[in-house]
Amino acid sequence: MRVTMCLTSDQDFWQLSQGHVDHLRSTFPDVDFRVATPATVPNELPASEVYFGWRFAPTWFSLAPSLRWIASPAAGTDHLPVRQAQQAGVMLTRSYGFHGGPMSEHAMGLILGFSRGLFTSSRLQLTRRWWKNELATEFFDLAGATLAIVGCGSIGAHLARVAGVFKMNVIGVRRTPPADAQDGIRWIPASSIRQAVAEADVVVDLLPATAETSGFFDQRMFDSCKPGAIFINLGRASTVDHTALLQALEDGPLGGAALDVTTPRPLSMEDALRLHPRVILTPKSATFSRFYMDEAITFFTDNLRRYLNDLSLQGVATLLTEGGSDVSL
Amino acid sequence: MRVTMCLTSDQDFWQLSQGHVDHLRSTFPDVDFRVATPATVPNELPASEVYFGWRFAPTWFSLAPSLRWIASPAAGTDHLPVRQAQQAGVMLTRSYGFHGGPMSEHAMGLILGFSRGLFTSSRLQLTRRWWKNELATEFFDLAGATLAIVGCGSIGAHLARVAGVFKMNVIGVRRTPPADAQDGIRWIPASSIRQAVAEADVVVDLLPATAETSGFFDQRMFDSCKPGAIFINLGRASTVDHTALLQALEDGPLGGAALDVTTPRPLSMEDALRLHPRVILTPKSATFSRFYMDEAITFFTDNLRRYLNDLSLQGVATLLTEGGSDVSL
Repeated sequence: MRVTMCLTSDQDFWQLSQGHVDHLRSTFPDVDFRVATPATVPNELPASEVYFGWRFAPTWFSLAPSLRWIASPAAGTDHLPVRQAQQAGVMLTRSYGFHGGPMSEHAMGLILGFSRGLFTSSRLQLTRRWWKNELATEFFDLAGATLAIVGCGSIGAHLARVAGVFKMNVIGVRRTPPADAQDGIRWIPASSIRQAVAEADVVVDLLPATAETSGFFDQRMFDSCKPGAIFINLGRASTVDHTALLQALEDGPLGGAALDVTTPRPLSMEDALRLHPRVILTPKSATFSRFYMDEAITFFTDNLRRYLNDLSLQGVATLLTEGGSDVSL
Repeated sequence: MRVTMCLTSDQDFWQLSQGHVDHLRSTFPDVDFRVATPATVPNELPASEVYFGWRFAPTWFSLAPSLRWIASPAAGTDHLPVRQAQQAGVMLTRSYGFHGGPMSEHAMGLILGFSRGLFTSSRLQLTRRWWKNELATEFFDLAGATLAIVGCGSIGAHLARVAGVFKMNVIGVRRTPPADAQDGIRWIPASSIRQAVAEADVVVDLLPATAETSGFFDQRMFDSCKPGAIFINLGRASTVDHTALLQALEDGPLGGAALDVTTPRPLSMEDALRLHPRVILTPKSATFSRFYMDEAITFFTDNLRRYLNDLSLQGVATLLTEGGSDVSL
């Protein structure tokens, strides 16, 4: 049984290491693991039953008559051919359960950077003699503040636990709130989203990219925000109307914004959001973690064991969840 | 029994409000509460038994023959005449138990700002097209990283609890570690401080200002730090040799530094630390909290009740703890 793995990246923590390959080979001695690059994947596919990689080109299906399963180490699936896989009778799985750590670190860093006036300090120290009074006006306590997590799945639940230690009140927004949650989250269905953003001092967008979430944060949504609210997008760029976001910062209620995802990526040097003094851009680094591939291999190892034992796989993407998440609106 | 209160400030959250005064008067109907400004304090002192305020001028002792207790809403006492009070037979108390919240928010914001590359992003977005690869090299996971809290008292214990949620390993450094701590902190006595800083990815300085802590973080201490370590001073400016700090950033092991306290305050516009790309300065804002005076009044109310019932007071400063803390080295 052949497994082709194509896990190359500009970042070493998103790449397959020799240690990972050795681990897989010793764990599954009967499996023929092949390590490929995007250029050599087509050579391996004809005899492969399983493919594990960041991307899968739609043209590859015709080269892979024996393919039964495409596994991705990513949380989202909007960059993967979910529909074509379904049509070809190939299972496609995403990975989950380990993005919450780094993404909660990233989100809390951004939230605290605004709430404690750290981004303001970092910039003003270069040009202004003293800025204590400005900061005394700008800062806010996280204790008692409200955080709305829009698209609140397993990553959001992790963030909610961390925010709880700072004594934040957490609202979770998703299409169908869990029935009997014991997680300290106040659940609000997506249909009542305006109520959630109206109460929130901080709104974190974790929405996947789907037809339904395209432009979800538009002018009407931002108009519903609380004065001074901070908006943070760690989800997908398509969920935010940038023109409306800029307007909400300039003439609307928003106190600040942070974007880890944008279209285009990166934003042009002339983009007003790039130069805005209350906007922080990060280079799609919310999931940066030195443990990333270790965790992804652990997830894949568990799923491969299930596969070999004819058990159902974890993280199967369907057309319903296309865009890649358990939290589609 | 007269209590004179002088709690004026540039910041409203550090000032006494009419609501606080009303609360005190209704809680203690037999006490004569007087609200003073620094200019009118001398008029009230001759008949005052208790003084509650941010500052107490040494010259005021001779005006206050009935004075028995000076209460401060601050955590530190290095700005107060502890020695003179002791000589005059006047008790002096600091406040504690409520600085841990805002200071932990501030510390975690600074730690995450470095660990997630947020300060770097905030600055580079203005001038650089893209900086993803630089950030991939610079960032580090808090999970599994080591935080050394130097001068680890009640504020440090709060920070340790918060850091624990991010799965950091926490080392607490103080003169005498607690005997049987069940707090998840690995305690190291101050005499072995070098061992602590050598292991730490982040060092947070919460030391009070005393003769012993003056220049505590000097060149030898910084030389002991781990390559890439982040140094954060939320304690007192006198505990850090700035020349050594700059050298440790330029030619030594430090990856970044944040200073909430400096001498002079603010640093001059030409100071190399101000302009350093890996230094963040905050304007002594680590204890900013809209709840500050509410909490300080609660602490004082409890202590005043003790005073009126001849019970021992909380937070009594002695010459041993001069500089104001339970964590002097």
